[in-house]
Amino acid sequence: MSDKKYIVGVDLGGTSIKVGVVPYDGGRVLGVRSMPTNSDHGAKFVVDRMVEMIRGSMRDAAREENIPDDGFIGIGLGSPGPLDRKTGTVIETPNLGWRNFPLRDLIANSIGLAAELDNDANCATIGEWWMGAGKGVQTLIGVTLGTGIGGGIVLDGRVYHGAADVAGEVGHMTIDSTGRKCKCGNYGCLEAYASGPAIAARAIEGLETGEPSLLPSLVDGDLSQITAETVYEAIVAGDLYAKEVMRETAKFLGAGLANLINILNPGMVVISGGVTKAGEHLFEPLRAQIRRRAFRHAEESCKIVSSTLDGMAGVIGAAYMFRVERFGNG
Amino acid sequence: MSDKKYIVGVDLGGTSIKVGVVPYDGGRVLGVRSMPTNSDHGAKFVVDRMVEMIRGSMRDAAREENIPDDGFIGIGLGSPGPLDRKTGTVIETPNLGWRNFPLRDLIANSIGLAAELDNDANCATIGEWWMGAGKGVQTLIGVTLGTGIGGGIVLDGRVYHGAADVAGEVGHMTIDSTGRKCKCGNYGCLEAYASGPAIAARAIEGLETGEPSLLPSLVDGDLSQITAETVYEAIVAGDLYAKEVMRETAKFLGAGLANLINILNPGMVVISGGVTKAGEHLFEPLRAQIRRRAFRHAEESCKIVSSTLDGMAGVIGAAYMFRVERFGNG
Repeated sequence: MSDKKYIVGVDLGGTSIKVGVVPYDGGRVLGVRSMPTNSDHGAKFVVDRMVEMIRGSMRDAAREENIPDDGFIGIGLGSPGPLDRKTGTVIETPNLGWRNFPLRDLIANSIGLAAELDNDANCATIGEWWMGAGKGVQTLIGVTLGTGIGGGIVLDGRVYHGAADVAGEVGHMTIDSTGRKCKCGNYGCLEAYASGPAIAARAIEGLETGEPSLLPSLVDGDLSQITAETVYEAIVAGDLYAKEVMRETAKFLGAGLANLINILNPGMVVISGGVTKAGEHLFEPLRAQIRRRAFRHAEESCKIVSSTLDGMAGVIGAAYMFRVERFGNG
Repeated sequence: MSDKKYIVGVDLGGTSIKVGVVPYDGGRVLGVRSMPTNSDHGAKFVVDRMVEMIRGSMRDAAREENIPDDGFIGIGLGSPGPLDRKTGTVIETPNLGWRNFPLRDLIANSIGLAAELDNDANCATIGEWWMGAGKGVQTLIGVTLGTGIGGGIVLDGRVYHGAADVAGEVGHMTIDSTGRKCKCGNYGCLEAYASGPAIAARAIEGLETGEPSLLPSLVDGDLSQITAETVYEAIVAGDLYAKEVMRETAKFLGAGLANLINILNPGMVVISGGVTKAGEHLFEPLRAQIRRRAFRHAEESCKIVSSTLDGMAGVIGAAYMFRVERFGNG
């Protein structure tokens, strides 16, 4: 492949859609744009918005780097799953309300370019491997802490998909089989402790038992307004209770990551999502917990780091995923 | 490779050593022998015993199938780990008391054949993939329930080793972070619930609170003599309490296996070890628990089965491991 080729990367999430044009051999992402998904407007609205964003992104990139029409070779799409990668179909996404939705072909036909579809967390993880924190690492696990907890596994520069394309579901790992109820119906899932909403819920529970904290003052006394972000703000303001909530988060997350590390012995775990803003308030107790819970040889060979792609891992990884699907790992 | 070649497989465990001669292309294992490890007699004793068993096994096989000296092409060694596969060294095994022990070269030099070393659980899992329950499965997880709980991961016919050769440590997966203390020092490891000794311990705890059961009568009233085997005997005799203990075991094991299934989306999990004697008393509630805890798509694509190699998976897999290391997956 010549170095004048470009791939469009699309990161479709429950909250926002991000699009950018990625050079085939890597480098700066061009024509980046981000818009709310507004999935409540229906699937057609979302697809039309994606198509419009892709066109706009290609136009900007073409202008900026003088890319001819045939400089764009395809589109990589990252979407919440489960998916059928072979048919390019989204099997179901609770967040978007889609079922058996032929996303790949709808986009490919509208734009007139080949497209490939993969899971959003898989794309983010291969993105980190290609151009982010995971460069040069052979075995990489990506964990995204957001409304839910997503995961991707990259082995030797390829996404590991498993038998039915659903590998990497780390959010519903049981870490406390008799513990907190998760919205999936089970008890003690990692997501019930360390997702954004779970962190907020745990913080509120403590406040309701009378823990002294700045937190109520940050939401004008309306505890229901507290989010993981508010907890982070309180930490920055020196609030000891908020720090304790983050330390607890690290304890639960550490148990989950130690499980992944014991099972897969990866060279790196990359953590992304809003919660990583807490920085060392999260990472220091997290690493300590992993040291305590994981096997020494597995723990010593695994770096625990924050994403370095600033929210663009999904776009970059979707583009790379297209490249690997069509042209291999060369 | 011609079909007249043979590989010696050795399965070194904390309790026993098993050896057999395996045809390069698979088939009946020849010259099988099994002896206690007696690791308390020291490393030299164990290595001498292994060498003697290997020689005896080769002699029997040669006689049975008229194998010439050059029909034996090498030795595959499965050992408890962690190991350094490259140097063929056992880094440490609490069960054998060895540290930085150059097992591979000691055996290779004594016998005068090339040898390869890998983890015992890895060998057992690739053995199941090659000639056992996992034939034709792409992604296979093997879980051994014994004194401890071991695991191996096979992807596309190759053992997955991870960044430092310690992947597959499923026994110390946290399933109940505030739960039972494990002998590793942490709380809530799978092994603290579902290993043989843990099953016995849980059974005894219930008896001490006055649960009516046949179990005490099976050990002449000395509860300390109860093992997982005794629990199985009581089940066969129709004891309701023992059945309940096994159902509880299935619940904990199910949480652990559901984690593996959500993370790796394997096509099969093969379970081996004494506890599998409980048959459907274990497997029926186990599958129910996995159905409850794992993602539907991951659960539906995964068979949960018992080993079919009758304790020989480690020997067979060690031989196949040698073959893959030296000749690839052809």
